[in-house]
Amino acid sequence: MTHNLDELIEQYRAELFDSVLPFWLENSIDKEYGGYFTCLDRQGKVFDTDKFIWLQGREVWLFSMLYNNVAPRQEWLDAAVSGAKFLKEHGHDGNFNWYFSVTRDGKPLVEPYNIFSNTFATMAFGQLAKATGCKEYESIALNTWNEVLKRRENPKGKWNKLHPGTRQLKNFALPMILCNLVLEIQHLLDESMLKKTTDDFLHEVLDVFIRPELGGIVMENVLEDGTLCDCFEGRHMNPGHAIEAMWFIMDLGRRLNRPELIELAKDTALRMAEYGWDKEFGGIYYFMDLKGCPPQELEWDQKLWWVHLETMISMIKGYRLTGDKRCLEWFERVHDYAWEHFKDKEYPEWFGYLNRRGEVLLPLKGGKWKGCFHVPRGLYQVWTVLKEMKEEGIEL
Amino acid sequence: MTHNLDELIEQYRAELFDSVLPFWLENSIDKEYGGYFTCLDRQGKVFDTDKFIWLQGREVWLFSMLYNNVAPRQEWLDAAVSGAKFLKEHGHDGNFNWYFSVTRDGKPLVEPYNIFSNTFATMAFGQLAKATGCKEYESIALNTWNEVLKRRENPKGKWNKLHPGTRQLKNFALPMILCNLVLEIQHLLDESMLKKTTDDFLHEVLDVFIRPELGGIVMENVLEDGTLCDCFEGRHMNPGHAIEAMWFIMDLGRRLNRPELIELAKDTALRMAEYGWDKEFGGIYYFMDLKGCPPQELEWDQKLWWVHLETMISMIKGYRLTGDKRCLEWFERVHDYAWEHFKDKEYPEWFGYLNRRGEVLLPLKGGKWKGCFHVPRGLYQVWTVLKEMKEEGIEL
Repeated sequence: MTHNLDELIEQYRAELFDSVLPFWLENSIDKEYGGYFTCLDRQGKVFDTDKFIWLQGREVWLFSMLYNNVAPRQEWLDAAVSGAKFLKEHGHDGNFNWYFSVTRDGKPLVEPYNIFSNTFATMAFGQLAKATGCKEYESIALNTWNEVLKRRENPKGKWNKLHPGTRQLKNFALPMILCNLVLEIQHLLDESMLKKTTDDFLHEVLDVFIRPELGGIVMENVLEDGTLCDCFEGRHMNPGHAIEAMWFIMDLGRRLNRPELIELAKDTALRMAEYGWDKEFGGIYYFMDLKGCPPQELEWDQKLWWVHLETMISMIKGYRLTGDKRCLEWFERVHDYAWEHFKDKEYPEWFGYLNRRGEVLLPLKGGKWKGCFHVPRGLYQVWTVLKEMKEEGIEL
Repeated sequence: MTHNLDELIEQYRAELFDSVLPFWLENSIDKEYGGYFTCLDRQGKVFDTDKFIWLQGREVWLFSMLYNNVAPRQEWLDAAVSGAKFLKEHGHDGNFNWYFSVTRDGKPLVEPYNIFSNTFATMAFGQLAKATGCKEYESIALNTWNEVLKRRENPKGKWNKLHPGTRQLKNFALPMILCNLVLEIQHLLDESMLKKTTDDFLHEVLDVFIRPELGGIVMENVLEDGTLCDCFEGRHMNPGHAIEAMWFIMDLGRRLNRPELIELAKDTALRMAEYGWDKEFGGIYYFMDLKGCPPQELEWDQKLWWVHLETMISMIKGYRLTGDKRCLEWFERVHDYAWEHFKDKEYPEWFGYLNRRGEVLLPLKGGKWKGCFHVPRGLYQVWTVLKEMKEEGIEL
């Protein structure tokens, strides 16, 4: 590896604490109505004031997590609490069904059709409960968690447009996110609940979506009975999503003291990085088709920030935990690509959307889907793992 | 203009009848289950067998329309009837609520949430009723038309994810399509019904979505009370959609003998072509943002086949009907771009999806949204207008 460990640690530290976090603290806090602006242009100016619940929850989580894990800085707690208050008052329908989006002043815009609004609200209030010891936040987290478990079988509920009975597909995203979420709120769950749900989610991810007959790659959608389906959704591949899931599994492997999970996750992450890498222009494709058919998503060949940050996390964790040199090679490859293409060299925060060639497609720093989450979480995770490696004497 | 009228007429005729229509007749007919395959690769091989009702209806319409307007060829009627039988049996829920998609053998996949499945079914059975004189087809067209009118106020029905009352937007697509549909089924409507609905749809398009305060450009979404909304949907621009609508208005202007409609439509089409043209790489953008903010659609800068075919129709009609030379210049510019970039020089039919630079993004000839419709309809319309110009002595 051409990089030096101490320099890398400092690079990630400085980027996170001196550039990215100040960007969000300065630009995203809505001092009038609470909550956060996430639609921020290249320089941080607000271009749209709608509030998307995924991103509101994720920003509460991020600042709470830093408060819990890095240092009890008042400004981080204040930032988290301002978002949590807004979410608590305006984010759900009274029964912990979280809207998809609301107006700046908190009027509901898009109904609670999207279960991931719930998962990110759970994460948010779970971490903030830990930071504050506040029982109300704890109970919001647990109530929302219970709603998630209730809705698992039919996450879209009445907004589900699939005709029942013809082709019941199940999707990788929910068990994958739940593998992370259960660790995020483990301080609120008793050990038997943790064990039961974890076994369940892990079974889905490991035995259903990772496919040995395809060499161990990860599918996004399979039929209810676990078989593959030769349709657009059934052929749909999302390499970044699969790679992200693998560091969730590595974390679970450590928590449950199951090293074989870590090995499997590391191998799967390597396989999916190899699968998704664009050999012509570099970077990892957004979407692919299992059979090489034209995908239905027109943005399939774009390079997205989160895919690359999540890959860096999985690869550096994989290296630290298993010593597999291929992880280090992949970490370096994706690190070099990401810092060259996603980092904005003139203004703080990273670009989110590049075209296939790696040129900036949208100059925004935040929008409907990009908020204060993958960039700071990725920088935090890589910084933390690099520091652990230094303490443990693991060389690059 | 550098093109010769006779050569152009022959170019469009040959492309339509000797290349594009044979492609669909040879590759899209499902001889086992009826209906059409539309997911066809570059060479015409089926890569997915799901049947999307928009495209099933549009192909029935296309072959019926050619039978009615060009020549009563049995193979065209057979192709139309094979699709119509499948649609009649499997395309709706028994009450003329047309599914969005069904399996190859006709099992419902995606529920009737999309009102455009109804509009294209109406078009299909309306033209086929004209071709065959069959009362059953006529009644399917009229029943479906009545469902469309009933659903106009809340087209998505129970699948609408917008929270009622916060921000009621209305969309350009439905009145725009209805301006065309009412002419497609005029032989089934009495004159007072035609007049009443036409006045209504024209009012929506002309007085609501064309905005004089913005220099006469066309918005895609406005609030219920007709005011603009500064949100993603409210800033959303779709130049190709607006330009397509303008030839529907020109046709209505002729039908209703209202030349001022033709003038307005021609000027609006010119304005939207100017607005949407990519001055760096050529071609018309798919989506834009009124205020130049980053659009939420990641495919915004791509160049789509239908946008360019519809623009050619509007420009050549605009020139024929008004003599405005700017229309001819625009026709030539878009004709040159389209034949250079969308026409596949090695295999029949045209590419559908190009990246911003005009390079092929997906090599398919048909898919979930591209079927036997915009390419052959565009070639037919341009060919027909060019022939009329020749008869009328209008020069290029």
